[in-house]
Amino acid sequence: MPSAIVAGASGYTGALAAALLQRHDEIDLVAVTSRSDAGRRLDDLYPQHRVPLVLDAFDAEDHDRIDAAIVAYPHGAAAPVVAQLRERGAKVVDLSADFRLRDPGTYAAWYGEHGAPQLFGEGVYGLPELRREEVAAADLVANPGCYPTATLLALAPLARAGLIADAVVDAKSGVSGAGRQATETTHFVSADENVTPYGVGRHRHMPEIEQELEALGVRGVVPAFTPHLLPLDQGELVSCYVTTSEPVDGDRLGGLYEQAYAGEPFVELARRPPGVRDVRDTNICRIFTHADPRTGKALVFAAIDNLWKGAASQAVQNLNLMFGLDERAGLR
Amino acid sequence: MPSAIVAGASGYTGALAAALLQRHDEIDLVAVTSRSDAGRRLDDLYPQHRVPLVLDAFDAEDHDRIDAAIVAYPHGAAAPVVAQLRERGAKVVDLSADFRLRDPGTYAAWYGEHGAPQLFGEGVYGLPELRREEVAAADLVANPGCYPTATLLALAPLARAGLIADAVVDAKSGVSGAGRQATETTHFVSADENVTPYGVGRHRHMPEIEQELEALGVRGVVPAFTPHLLPLDQGELVSCYVTTSEPVDGDRLGGLYEQAYAGEPFVELARRPPGVRDVRDTNICRIFTHADPRTGKALVFAAIDNLWKGAASQAVQNLNLMFGLDERAGLR
Amino acid sequence: MPSAIVAGASGYTGALAAALLQRHDEIDLVAVTSRSDAGRRLDDLYPQHRVPLVLDAFDAEDHDRIDAAIVAYPHGAAAPVVAQLRERGAKVVDLSADFRLRDPGTYAAWYGEHGAPQLFGEGVYGLPELRREEVAAADLVANPGCYPTATLLALAPLARAGLIADAVVDAKSGVSGAGRQATETTHFVSADENVTPYGVGRHRHMPEIEQELEALGVRGVVPAFTPHLLPLDQGELVSCYVTTSEPVDGDRLGGLYEQAYAGEPFVELARRPPGVRDVRDTNICRIFTHADPRTGKALVFAAIDNLWKGAASQAVQNLNLMFGLDERAGLR
Amino acid sequence: MPSAIVAGASGYTGALAAALLQRHDEIDLVAVTSRSDAGRRLDDLYPQHRVPLVLDAFDAEDHDRIDAAIVAYPHGAAAPVVAQLRERGAKVVDLSADFRLRDPGTYAAWYGEHGAPQLFGEGVYGLPELRREEVAAADLVANPGCYPTATLLALAPLARAGLIADAVVDAKSGVSGAGRQATETTHFVSADENVTPYGVGRHRHMPEIEQELEALGVRGVVPAFTPHLLPLDQGELVSCYVTTSEPVDGDRLGGLYEQAYAGEPFVELARRPPGVRDVRDTNICRIFTHADPRTGKALVFAAIDNLWKGAASQAVQNLNLMFGLDERAGLR
Repeated sequence: MPSAIVAGASGYTGALAAALLQRHDEIDLVAVTSRSDAGRRLDDLYPQHRVPLVLDAFDAEDHDRIDAAIVAYPHGAAAPVVAQLRERGAKVVDLSADFRLRDPGTYAAWYGEHGAPQLFGEGVYGLPELRREEVAAADLVANPGCYPTATLLALAPLARAGLIADAVVDAKSGVSGAGRQATETTHFVSADENVTPYGVGRHRHMPEIEQELEALGVRGVVPAFTPHLLPLDQGELVSCYVTTSEPVDGDRLGGLYEQAYAGEPFVELARRPPGVRDVRDTNICRIFTHADPRTGKALVFAAIDNLWKGAASQAVQNLNLMFGLDERAGLR
Repeated sequence: MPSAIVAGASGYTGALAAALLQRHDEIDLVAVTSRSDAGRRLDDLYPQHRVPLVLDAFDAEDHDRIDAAIVAYPHGAAAPVVAQLRERGAKVVDLSADFRLRDPGTYAAWYGEHGAPQLFGEGVYGLPELRREEVAAADLVANPGCYPTATLLALAPLARAGLIADAVVDAKSGVSGAGRQATETTHFVSADENVTPYGVGRHRHMPEIEQELEALGVRGVVPAFTPHLLPLDQGELVSCYVTTSEPVDGDRLGGLYEQAYAGEPFVELARRPPGVRDVRDTNICRIFTHADPRTGKALVFAAIDNLWKGAASQAVQNLNLMFGLDERAGLR
Repeated sequence: MPSAIVAGASGYTGALAAALLQRHDEIDLVAVTSRSDAGRRLDDLYPQHRVPLVLDAFDAEDHDRIDAAIVAYPHGAAAPVVAQLRERGAKVVDLSADFRLRDPGTYAAWYGEHGAPQLFGEGVYGLPELRREEVAAADLVANPGCYPTATLLALAPLARAGLIADAVVDAKSGVSGAGRQATETTHFVSADENVTPYGVGRHRHMPEIEQELEALGVRGVVPAFTPHLLPLDQGELVSCYVTTSEPVDGDRLGGLYEQAYAGEPFVELARRPPGVRDVRDTNICRIFTHADPRTGKALVFAAIDNLWKGAASQAVQNLNLMFGLDERAGLR
Repeated sequence: MPSAIVAGASGYTGALAAALLQRHDEIDLVAVTSRSDAGRRLDDLYPQHRVPLVLDAFDAEDHDRIDAAIVAYPHGAAAPVVAQLRERGAKVVDLSADFRLRDPGTYAAWYGEHGAPQLFGEGVYGLPELRREEVAAADLVANPGCYPTATLLALAPLARAGLIADAVVDAKSGVSGAGRQATETTHFVSADENVTPYGVGRHRHMPEIEQELEALGVRGVVPAFTPHLLPLDQGELVSCYVTTSEPVDGDRLGGLYEQAYAGEPFVELARRPPGVRDVRDTNICRIFTHADPRTGKALVFAAIDNLWKGAASQAVQNLNLMFGLDERAGLR
């Protein structure tokens, strides 16, 4: 049974990844690390996860023989940790953006200097529904961002069919997406009874979405993407308004999605618009499509749990694939 | 001082209209009526409003000498009540959709048979920022829907400038927008920790938005409009993504809005994206614009309180205009 | 493997019971029934539970050979269904109050006429931590109410030690405790941003708490119990203020609870006050005790998930015991 | 017209006090100060308040001629600011605990060293419903804490009648009560869908409650007081369970409260349990009493808005009294 660590387990996604591995029957969680909370028990920080391990300070030498790691560090800080773990032979799923982008200039423009340039571009973009075989063969997987996960699953069938002429992606996320850090934005009194657009025109998930849409065949289209902060803890919805390059009726639209996602264990096609409650605490992306005759647009709505399919459970899904396990192990 | 009644004061918007008139220094609230709760005190139904009046069953003969009425009945049921009040000479602001549309066929298609066909089309569309003079001269004002209010204020400057080539309007509303009726949708456990699109492709506010955009000069554009239900009580945000007919940079975009809304007492142009908390319990529409060089689109975000500017306080604003009062009376 | 049905699976607790049995490895869920939603799929009503069964109208003859049933009917309506199932030999866990009380007069006073008087008093009160052996031997288990579950687990160690001279129990519950029915109380706009006491002096869980405290040896004490409705979906906290019959310091108090709950798989003794988030979606009761030198009182706080330990998962825990399975089966 | 400043206007209560004075017709708000946000506009920090003033760093010399000040500094830091303002002759309402307590030893035990010992004990405890004349004659008013405000209004009639033999006060507050500072506790994801007791056995409002109950004639009773954090922004409810020194039936209990609060503009006696929504954004305390025959206890529930009657609007009420204005000025 592969042994694994979670590096950076004191944040929301790292802690959840640890909890998922802790109850995974075919992966053995042997350690959890934290920069800010070393010495504390994880079940003291997160009673709800019930992981009875003490957080260590990260030291790669402690982990010479581990088989796998999920790294949940902030962008920039992740790369050096990933590099150390890779040098020791561990297969790594990295939750940061450090290995998602293909173009060094794009990375530099959005994130600054890279922390392990020798590995830049080595990661497989870990959206299993789109790159299952590549993930299975990879030693380093870049786990997608939460917004790109939902957006790409929502748009992939249209993208592959060459039907996207223009797209607006209006995204809504719960506050856990902003991370564990206490700020004015994440203060209860700021977020409660509120909804606010943020990152207007400059959200870091934009280049990632564009890169992967291009990989799906989309050319010359820059989707208008705006995230909004909602007063809920977990959950994310993307509402996609696609101008199609040719008329697409409901039957054809529905057929594209059924074909694309038949047999996918973690994609649900719904007969009515999804709510994020429908996918809370699951690895599932729930999608509803509507061909709108009044506007001629194809509408696609996709709901995920940002902490799960948008981060931690998708990391476990990727790890399962990388170790030849049932993709669903530990996630049912 | 004009005397006024609120007919249909047991719903959320009618009750708020009554509360606003109750503390209005220049209009005298003399009666409140209700079909479902006649005999109950309004401050028993809504302790927070502190309106110490008993709800009566509506009988037009009781109100022979009143000067004004705000009618807060459901669509279809409103028209006959409005007609009876108009026959007796009262100036009326109607919160329903019954007098908003200009085309009888459109009304019939979306709402069915009209309850007072002799008055159809007689109402002035009561968005004061766009039709102040018409409202001031009117005896019957059709108060706009909440989504049209926010959407039209968000799009009017671009519409008048002939710049709208295509538009996506992604709208988000608190649960009070669904009204006082207890349903599966409005149950706390359904709405809490959730966000759901609804009325996809068939929301009744669509024809109203299109009609008024056309009145502003927009031709041949059907905006893609989708509302979403959010876990908050009051508040509404519209996120508008406009494909412009020619490139519009930030300076020009900002200038259009400053020019359009200079001196407007109830429109605020913000330097950052608005949250609905910023306008809670006010008659204010708060707008933020962004010219997005990456997509070439003009982004406009507008926040209102759906119960206030989206309904009850806008009705009072209209009533003020109709009686020659300061537009802000009772609303500061 | 025992076969089971859930009768009354369209309410919150019945639906959750069905979901828990559906993924239970050692009990086979064969049918779900509903009075109000027969013919609908359960995963259409509750997408989040993913139980792909159609709800049937209940007919005892359909279930001649089932081994077990969880009945989730309202008080009064439950008893006849339970009786029919018992006649056919099924072991039953009943979620209603119909078999909780021992005294017919008390039942009549609080609930009215009983629906199956021949079975009155036959049920074992199914709080496994207090009556494990009785439950294991029972054919009919009366699943405790949510407030009694938390209150009795909070007070049992003090009760058994004969230390309760007086008690105040201030209880707080999420809105799911009010059930699926859409009412003014459960409307989002009523419950959101609110907290309200209800059932003051007359909540139906009172006689149940008193009966079971008496069974634990408490004499002549009527706890003051008041529930409050909170703006959250799932979760319940009871804050107990106990006047002790003799001084009890922190060591003794802590010792009583450690002794009482050592080895209990579903009781956690916490070192700080519990939040209901800590136990969300679990069968766990989390307890914190504090001996307060300023007032001389013993304070005990207990948190559960009202839908889980307060209803559906406790029913499964009981069913496990009744069939000789590991108490934790299907609940980890 | 008296001129006034708000010192410490960047926190929740100071900002609200500024907003209330800004729209007050008989007090002239001339400046707002802040330690952390000097140089920022108050309407940038709090768009909803629409106070178009720039926050200054506090310098007493700038305010030589002002008539009044509301000081909203943290405990300890408030006293020196109050002293400087008093030296210059301004009448001061202080929102901190620095001038609430009468006993220096008690202050030291709960708060540490006092920042202006020469003024210790000089403040009138500013609960107008209990000390209206003293407040009117005062130059320095110590505005009560939020919990003491609700608790004392709930218990005063019983206290004065000598009927309190024992009392449990279970208090519930929205997150704004924890202040503007972003912490793990105030993070949306911590507070949302949660309820937690805090300060168990050691909350700083305890000595204040005990001191004032004693002033009302209560002897030898230490109420058991526990606050709880609720997932809402504004609002506070105290649930009081009073063991009476002699039997008190409903008529007598109700009569005590009617007599005590007849004519009080900001106390409402309700016929059903209050919710905090009923008093949101008001200076009102809404009270419900119940004589419980089953337990022999008197139950009293009181709801306030913690930011309003629990802090800022009560400060304005006090200021009105101190300047001989209508107590309700600026608060209707």
